[in-house]
Amino acid sequence: MDQLLNLIVEEAKTVLKAERATVFLIDKERKELWSKAALGAHKIRIPLDKGISGAVASSGKLLNIRDVYKDPRFNPEVDKKTGFRTRSVLTVPMRNAKSQVIGVFQVLNRIQGNAFDHQDEEILTLLADQATAQVENTHLYQEIRKLAQETIIRLAGAVEYKDYDTRQHLWRMSQYSALIAQKMGFDPEWCENLRLAAPMHDIGKVGVPDNVLNKPGKLSPEEWVEMKKHPQYGAEILGGSESELMQTSAIVALYHHERWDGKGYPKGLKEKEIPIEARIASLADVFDALVSKRIYKPSFSMEETLRLIQDEKGKQFDPEVVEAFFEILPKIMPIMEAYTPRGDSDKAVATPSF
Amino acid sequence: MDQLLNLIVEEAKTVLKAERATVFLIDKERKELWSKAALGAHKIRIPLDKGISGAVASSGKLLNIRDVYKDPRFNPEVDKKTGFRTRSVLTVPMRNAKSQVIGVFQVLNRIQGNAFDHQDEEILTLLADQATAQVENTHLYQEIRKLAQETIIRLAGAVEYKDYDTRQHLWRMSQYSALIAQKMGFDPEWCENLRLAAPMHDIGKVGVPDNVLNKPGKLSPEEWVEMKKHPQYGAEILGGSESELMQTSAIVALYHHERWDGKGYPKGLKEKEIPIEARIASLADVFDALVSKRIYKPSFSMEETLRLIQDEKGKQFDPEVVEAFFEILPKIMPIMEAYTPRGDSDKAVATPSF
Repeated sequence: MDQLLNLIVEEAKTVLKAERATVFLIDKERKELWSKAALGAHKIRIPLDKGISGAVASSGKLLNIRDVYKDPRFNPEVDKKTGFRTRSVLTVPMRNAKSQVIGVFQVLNRIQGNAFDHQDEEILTLLADQATAQVENTHLYQEIRKLAQETIIRLAGAVEYKDYDTRQHLWRMSQYSALIAQKMGFDPEWCENLRLAAPMHDIGKVGVPDNVLNKPGKLSPEEWVEMKKHPQYGAEILGGSESELMQTSAIVALYHHERWDGKGYPKGLKEKEIPIEARIASLADVFDALVSKRIYKPSFSMEETLRLIQDEKGKQFDPEVVEAFFEILPKIMPIMEAYTPRGDSDKAVATPSF
Repeated sequence: MDQLLNLIVEEAKTVLKAERATVFLIDKERKELWSKAALGAHKIRIPLDKGISGAVASSGKLLNIRDVYKDPRFNPEVDKKTGFRTRSVLTVPMRNAKSQVIGVFQVLNRIQGNAFDHQDEEILTLLADQATAQVENTHLYQEIRKLAQETIIRLAGAVEYKDYDTRQHLWRMSQYSALIAQKMGFDPEWCENLRLAAPMHDIGKVGVPDNVLNKPGKLSPEEWVEMKKHPQYGAEILGGSESELMQTSAIVALYHHERWDGKGYPKGLKEKEIPIEARIASLADVFDALVSKRIYKPSFSMEETLRLIQDEKGKQFDPEVVEAFFEILPKIMPIMEAYTPRGDSDKAVATPSF
């Protein structure tokens, strides 16, 4: 989505005949302006209360300066660091629909002539509106994806009328699935798709009778036959769609209990016969289930869990998936630590978006 | 989302000093170009194989013409209709990332000077890239919303492990809910939110025991007590979220069995005590259930259904919602006809996105 913003910045440079053009966004928490899109400059962060950009961001009024080194507001720090020599500067505020300033649009060094003129001010203001609309669209887009994930997790988690812990589990296993997929080199869209699809893997449990699904003790062989139908039910619920997300979710639902050594169900597929989506989600699911406390079992320690996964490499799990998983452990651990209520600890646990 | 496209068109007009600027998109089915965004002109449709725009759309090459009336490719039809007099025309193709031409960007009548120059060509090409990216983003956005709806309906429909008919029902009742809300004057975003939230209204049925939920005959008083808990369960599953969609869906789930006259459940609220989202979704749900064939009942005729709803105005249903519903019947009927398998008819039935 940022491609469009880059196009707008490129246009500013061309149309206004500037050496550099940059969109800076306000980072409220860090009280900084950061270069979201820049042509002819490196990515930079500058204090929100300093320099020309800071002045425009806080006043909300444009500044058109012929020679910045004569302006006391100018902050020469960036020039000092980069070796660039700023001369003329035109900076306009970026105002959203609620009239809040979300950043500034800046062009530096008019190539022909000494300064930017009044028409340039008008044009850059128009471009700033475009850039603002684009930034807001991108936020909206990200919000919708986040919302889609929350909705999927709540609905998929509702299947067994499970509690908040189940939601957290689904959220974590879907993050882990995406991280493993990234490590294995799949493209970002594919990984995002898997992130959304993975939490639906157990939806087929709606087809399993209550007395089997909620049985406190061990299942009888007949009950196991019923339980083992849930991947097929899931594939029926999710299958037959044109959408890639649904197709992925149907595949994960159908094959998440297959094993690398062929001893899984429902089809007894082995190795690469099992779709990679399912091989990834299966490990993410099992790992998270092991380290989490469940009503019917305490949590395994991290050591036990990791040893078990290592032992199952090439048996239950795809060796390549296991390897990718161990390589990204440093990314997985903080998520797990923050979002998993473990053992008997009363430690406060962070919550994802719900 | 179209606001950004309008900004780009506005900019083209300003920067290129043109009397008019228009983005035309290709409508493949109708073999036409239509003005998606236009400044200084009315919305128009022109044949894809005619005129300057048609030539640019089919060749994929820009045309910069000083005096169009001397050009045999020029189609004077639009001028004749509108009374506008076209002089100079610059038209560039809009190419997407796959290099397909999806439309053209056109500016008319250079205000200063007789013709658009080479630099104008470069700038308009840049603007065309921006406009294209924006059109593609909008499509992507719409795709994601569609996907969110399909996902919600599949998962919510899975709750009772119901069949394809249930999905169709949820899809239809959600369309009807949005149409009623539009008619009642709610803003488009609110209506869209209701469209996505409405299908989740029965998710709480996951908490109702199998033997009650799937009982073929009438429920006993004790079983009704169990069944009537589903709005509360739904509110628990969907509640407590920061997202507007989840909040709306929790409200609809909790109150969709309340009645205008106060005889509903779980709270026995009456009239405007019942949130409007729930009053709308409730009518949409009941209407669709009545006209649909279910395993345990034949479909009511349209006449019977409409009479029943009219009779329940001010009893089960909010009178204003009923009025809005009757006013939009002409929009509801074609959806119902196309997407509802009714009675014993073997007529083919269209499918929504899944």
